[in-house]
Amino acid sequence: MNKNYIIKDNWSIIEEGFDPKHVKSSESLMSLGNGAMGQRANFEEQYSGETFQGSYVAGVYYPDKTRVGWWKNGYPEYFAKVLNAANWIGIDVYINDEPLDLAKCREVKEFRRELNMKEGWLSRRFVATLPNFIEVKVETKRFLSLDEDEVGAIQYNVTPINQDVNIRFTPYLDNGITNEDSNWDDKFWDILSVDHQHDQAYIVSKTMKTHFHVCTAMQTQVSLNGQTLHLDKTVNATTDKIEFVYNKEVGKGNTLTLTKFGGYTSDRNHDKNTLVEVSKNTLEKVSELGFEVLLNNQKQAWAKIWDMADITIDGDVAAQQGIRFNIFQLNQTYLGKDARLNIGPKGFTGEKYGGSTYWDTEAYCLPFYMATKDQNVAKSLLEYRYNHLEKAIENAEKLGFKNGAALYPMVTMNGEECHNEWEITFEEIHRNGAIAFAIYNYHRFTGDYSYIPQKGLEVLIGIARFWHQRANFSSHLNKYVILGVTGPNEYENNVNNNWYTNYIAKWCIDYTLENISKIESDYSSDYTRIMNKVKLSKAEMAEWKTVADQMFFPYSEEHQVYLQQDGFLDKELITVSDLPKSERPINQNWSWDRILRSPYIKQADTLQGFYFFEDHFSTEELERHFDFYEPFTVHESSLSPCVHSIQAAKLNRMEQAYAFYLRTSRLDLDDYNHEVEEGLHITSMAGTWMSIVEGFGGMRVVDDMLSFEPKIPEQWEGYSFKINFRNQILKVNACKGHTHFELEGDKDLKILVNGKHVTISPNSLVSV
Amino acid sequence: MNKNYIIKDNWSIIEEGFDPKHVKSSESLMSLGNGAMGQRANFEEQYSGETFQGSYVAGVYYPDKTRVGWWKNGYPEYFAKVLNAANWIGIDVYINDEPLDLAKCREVKEFRRELNMKEGWLSRRFVATLPNFIEVKVETKRFLSLDEDEVGAIQYNVTPINQDVNIRFTPYLDNGITNEDSNWDDKFWDILSVDHQHDQAYIVSKTMKTHFHVCTAMQTQVSLNGQTLHLDKTVNATTDKIEFVYNKEVGKGNTLTLTKFGGYTSDRNHDKNTLVEVSKNTLEKVSELGFEVLLNNQKQAWAKIWDMADITIDGDVAAQQGIRFNIFQLNQTYLGKDARLNIGPKGFTGEKYGGSTYWDTEAYCLPFYMATKDQNVAKSLLEYRYNHLEKAIENAEKLGFKNGAALYPMVTMNGEECHNEWEITFEEIHRNGAIAFAIYNYHRFTGDYSYIPQKGLEVLIGIARFWHQRANFSSHLNKYVILGVTGPNEYENNVNNNWYTNYIAKWCIDYTLENISKIESDYSSDYTRIMNKVKLSKAEMAEWKTVADQMFFPYSEEHQVYLQQDGFLDKELITVSDLPKSERPINQNWSWDRILRSPYIKQADTLQGFYFFEDHFSTEELERHFDFYEPFTVHESSLSPCVHSIQAAKLNRMEQAYAFYLRTSRLDLDDYNHEVEEGLHITSMAGTWMSIVEGFGGMRVVDDMLSFEPKIPEQWEGYSFKINFRNQILKVNACKGHTHFELEGDKDLKILVNGKHVTISPNSLVSV
Repeated sequence: MNKNYIIKDNWSIIEEGFDPKHVKSSESLMSLGNGAMGQRANFEEQYSGETFQGSYVAGVYYPDKTRVGWWKNGYPEYFAKVLNAANWIGIDVYINDEPLDLAKCREVKEFRRELNMKEGWLSRRFVATLPNFIEVKVETKRFLSLDEDEVGAIQYNVTPINQDVNIRFTPYLDNGITNEDSNWDDKFWDILSVDHQHDQAYIVSKTMKTHFHVCTAMQTQVSLNGQTLHLDKTVNATTDKIEFVYNKEVGKGNTLTLTKFGGYTSDRNHDKNTLVEVSKNTLEKVSELGFEVLLNNQKQAWAKIWDMADITIDGDVAAQQGIRFNIFQLNQTYLGKDARLNIGPKGFTGEKYGGSTYWDTEAYCLPFYMATKDQNVAKSLLEYRYNHLEKAIENAEKLGFKNGAALYPMVTMNGEECHNEWEITFEEIHRNGAIAFAIYNYHRFTGDYSYIPQKGLEVLIGIARFWHQRANFSSHLNKYVILGVTGPNEYENNVNNNWYTNYIAKWCIDYTLENISKIESDYSSDYTRIMNKVKLSKAEMAEWKTVADQMFFPYSEEHQVYLQQDGFLDKELITVSDLPKSERPINQNWSWDRILRSPYIKQADTLQGFYFFEDHFSTEELERHFDFYEPFTVHESSLSPCVHSIQAAKLNRMEQAYAFYLRTSRLDLDDYNHEVEEGLHITSMAGTWMSIVEGFGGMRVVDDMLSFEPKIPEQWEGYSFKINFRNQILKVNACKGHTHFELEGDKDLKILVNGKHVTISPNSLVSV
Repeated sequence: MNKNYIIKDNWSIIEEGFDPKHVKSSESLMSLGNGAMGQRANFEEQYSGETFQGSYVAGVYYPDKTRVGWWKNGYPEYFAKVLNAANWIGIDVYINDEPLDLAKCREVKEFRRELNMKEGWLSRRFVATLPNFIEVKVETKRFLSLDEDEVGAIQYNVTPINQDVNIRFTPYLDNGITNEDSNWDDKFWDILSVDHQHDQAYIVSKTMKTHFHVCTAMQTQVSLNGQTLHLDKTVNATTDKIEFVYNKEVGKGNTLTLTKFGGYTSDRNHDKNTLVEVSKNTLEKVSELGFEVLLNNQKQAWAKIWDMADITIDGDVAAQQGIRFNIFQLNQTYLGKDARLNIGPKGFTGEKYGGSTYWDTEAYCLPFYMATKDQNVAKSLLEYRYNHLEKAIENAEKLGFKNGAALYPMVTMNGEECHNEWEITFEEIHRNGAIAFAIYNYHRFTGDYSYIPQKGLEVLIGIARFWHQRANFSSHLNKYVILGVTGPNEYENNVNNNWYTNYIAKWCIDYTLENISKIESDYSSDYTRIMNKVKLSKAEMAEWKTVADQMFFPYSEEHQVYLQQDGFLDKELITVSDLPKSERPINQNWSWDRILRSPYIKQADTLQGFYFFEDHFSTEELERHFDFYEPFTVHESSLSPCVHSIQAAKLNRMEQAYAFYLRTSRLDLDDYNHEVEEGLHITSMAGTWMSIVEGFGGMRVVDDMLSFEPKIPEQWEGYSFKINFRNQILKVNACKGHTHFELEGDKDLKILVNGKHVTISPNSLVSV
């Protein structure tokens, strides 16, 4: 229970007062990342209390040997793991030989931590009385540079208060780290060299099995009251750790500062034999710039991100802090600079969900990145899957599919499946649909069709082939059925005809056929190239079409709703409101079989389909399905409230929409699920953005036009956001009574507001 | 692939010629057991080739910490494991300091092993040329005493052939053993003492966590050409092993013999502080009797078992060997002397399926023990569950049931669930039905009703309560449904309304109500005692009845069959005959999801219900269901062919019945499933017995009378078996054209033969 200790603030995450029970939560909440690396907000100095140490290098993973109770054919041999990398932030501190350790101090006062989201840095200060009665004031600041994404910087200030003291700083690099999440307690790193030169130190190590080479490096410098000192130091090196030891007598009231630059270079970006050299040059470069200049650059880089991505909310600090926290963490996790990377469910804030990429990326994150970044970022996310197509085909082959059918993995780092619960890995196949939908969504939003003939169509064909083979004809129903699946609602396993899955399967086939036809006529050389590659016959396409045309959709005449799956109505239909509070969350209180046969829904399932394919259904249909399914929904997935918030807003149920919004935006800050210590829910944070922009703002793309239906929760005065739409930036500012639109661009933009055409000219404000 | 190396013989399992590839298979096939302990047929002397060492003490288990990929509420913390116990059979042999090791000999000739089932011993002989060119002849014999079930005996003879030699015998006890099947490679045993006195040695150890104390002991003696020697010996002891070293110069052509008695005593049967004393006395006793006398007693004990349990088959050695092998192994595994024990799927022949007791006991083993032993043995099997009732209630509580509902575990050693696949543990709940059915079956066969008011009714009430709570009302179907189950066919998981489960659930409730009513009127003091204990109201019983009366049974009008489960007809209904041979067994070739959505049936499911409740259905109905389901059945469970054999025989499809019979009776001897190295399929062996007695013999109990409809497969001349029916023994000898009946008893026995009443008088032969 960590609720309510974070101070409400528009721009910062602030903790005041030292409470050891909050250390692990704050380590998650105040995590730093710059897209290329990240780290939990661990203390620099030694800490003997409960802590979860974590430093991560983007794209560096380890294939941990799978652990299962009972092997089933098709299980992956390995489960890729986010890998805890060497610690470069460590600075042990001794005052007259007494270690500074907050768990052992006589008193810690004036403790304050701040994650400044506006400028992208983390600070900490406190006054501590050590066991030897020496009182010191400590002030630290740290950030991971957006400009130079292989380094971070730390300034660590110590001021003795009640006497003159000897201060010993021991900055170090430590590669002797382990993973919390390890199946077999294997060692993951091989240390290749531990070395130093002048004020720099380096550890080169490589991951076992995957052989990623990483150089962890640091450069350190000591100053007194701002004046650089040239202290002698001792160097201690072991097989997996290296430290510099500085000693300095410091009079009371004076401030000794250790400035430490550090970070990682890896052979993902450089020749493995040059890593020390690259690290050396980078450290020299940033150290010449100096801490303050680098920090200033950091502020500017974040200002640029915020200028585009910020959402303001007037009159509700909790909501404002929530959305900024979400936007900040998304940008810390993924910036779209590297098409080999993707958005892990915990980003750089923890190890859980080991693999990096889930369907979350396509279903939840893509809209955020499309609207707040250059369209190449969204394209990178699509290309990630294109680059994994071959592995998706291999994955499907392992499960008995053939002829180029592709099943994308449920969880992956490198395109291979690395999750191994059969009910998820083998059956939660709807993920394939989200990957196809993302291609459609990208085209719809950006207007850039070129991606489809270039790359997307091959992905679509692999996916269509999968659905065609995965459905089977039921002579009983005289329809095609899809048996044995798990839908988005993971509280049902191995069900038949999950409506969402059947619907998206049919849609995938139809959409693929439509694109094949378009590319055949408009992009004939791409058409020839692709058809030669995939060997797709008219006969096979005709078979696909039969499956799509004759797909079965379970429907209840009585309730006038599509059924989540064939057997849904046979369940005991007791709503969530009749469930005792003590039994919730059910995933912590009920046995699995009981959950499975209950009507309770973990996250939007049928309603997820209504979200994706909104324009296929009337508002009345949406309302009927919302009224039928929401009462059974326990929202025990972080991905659930955002979709419901958007739909509630559409149905003008603003109180409900607002409640769902708060639940999604402050999920981690208020620790709804009692698990923030393990890390943050990064991918669902994009859903928070959608809740405002698509939910309250009502933004859609209709016939190549942005469309809005702005609504404002009662608790707010108003809100604003910006949308990068086809290289013009539209600022939307919703106030009570009217909405202002402003365009940064060079040509008029036609939009729809509440169904009416409005033209916005560059650099002028239009109020509607 | 071990097929066909076992020599066909009426009474023995024989292997000739040494082939290292057969070592592990023969270790399984020639396992020894006496109900209280057992061991794989490991060589006594050191063997550096591939081997699977296993010695087991009945009832001594270890709760290994569960290993799962993803924890789900309700999972048991521990998985009880059959525990590899200390090795007491070991005798290392050195000839002129050269170890005798069959994997390292220059030549091994005249190798022959025989498991003599008639007399209950294992022998081995060979002539080996050692690396030092010395040729020796070795002859060994070993058995586990039925009379003295805490000891076994070994005679180990070595005769140098080509020169005079020094022979060193090093008999030992070794508690430094591990389990092949261990989740975490934990150490399972704590060694408490290693000691010796005169010619005896003892290791006392206790199992970790469960704290079973076991004394493993041996007494050894050396003789030359049959004359006892009084050799000096050296004693070597370490922390977990003790050995005696005997040296003797032996002229060529002379035979040096080591006689070793050994075994286990445990605090399951004795005070833990007296174990060494008990072992000492037992060893002294058997050593005074001597090897030959003890062996003679063994022959007599087995003769007594065979006299009752033997089945003869004329004209088909393979079939004869098969059935005797099955009867022999069943008797080695469980003799019914100890109500705390039960019948593990692998008996004492391997570690797989860790826990000891499955529904196999009630569904398959009970009829064999009822008909071939005193009825107390069957009663012991029922009491085993009665004694676990409290734990079954606790188990159900963990899953959210209340008010005394009992769910018996899928796998258990001590009444606690110790299996942890959710689809089995939580969903394969039909096991509860088999446990109730066994009570009915016991009463039907033995006529002993007293067990039900004494103990059985409480079990029935717990089970009926479970079914009542587990079913839910479907307003959609206006019936009670049972959702989310796995039926006997484990190739479907989490299905709705498995017909077998629903049927047996309804039957359990009806049968329980019927017995409550009978006990209320006929056993009023038992009634009062039980009702006070279980607090069962008329209202609750009325609710049960509603569920039973309104139970839903999926049915196909088109096929006129009950459906295995709601969704069966939506599957792609391709029969097994259309399945390429290369894809079978599907559990080794198909991914799990593909198996689950296929129509393929692992073992009798709907047909299992037709087997249990045969008299509820007409032969035409049986035929229709057999014709519908058998073509989809892959028989990939050892429990499948026997039920199909019985039903094929009933339907006069004798060729098919015979094929199923061979498959069940020689499953391990011919290694159909390519896994005999891991141990034998003990529980399915009882199904083999049923295939002959109930299948070919057509034996049933009808209105307190035995009924027969004997049929003979074309390949046989005839067959015979005996049935212990209510303390009279009926011998049935089926020949072509007629069947002879003979009665050992003291009063006339009325039976039905092909529907006609026949009266058999004691000690006279009736031919029909």
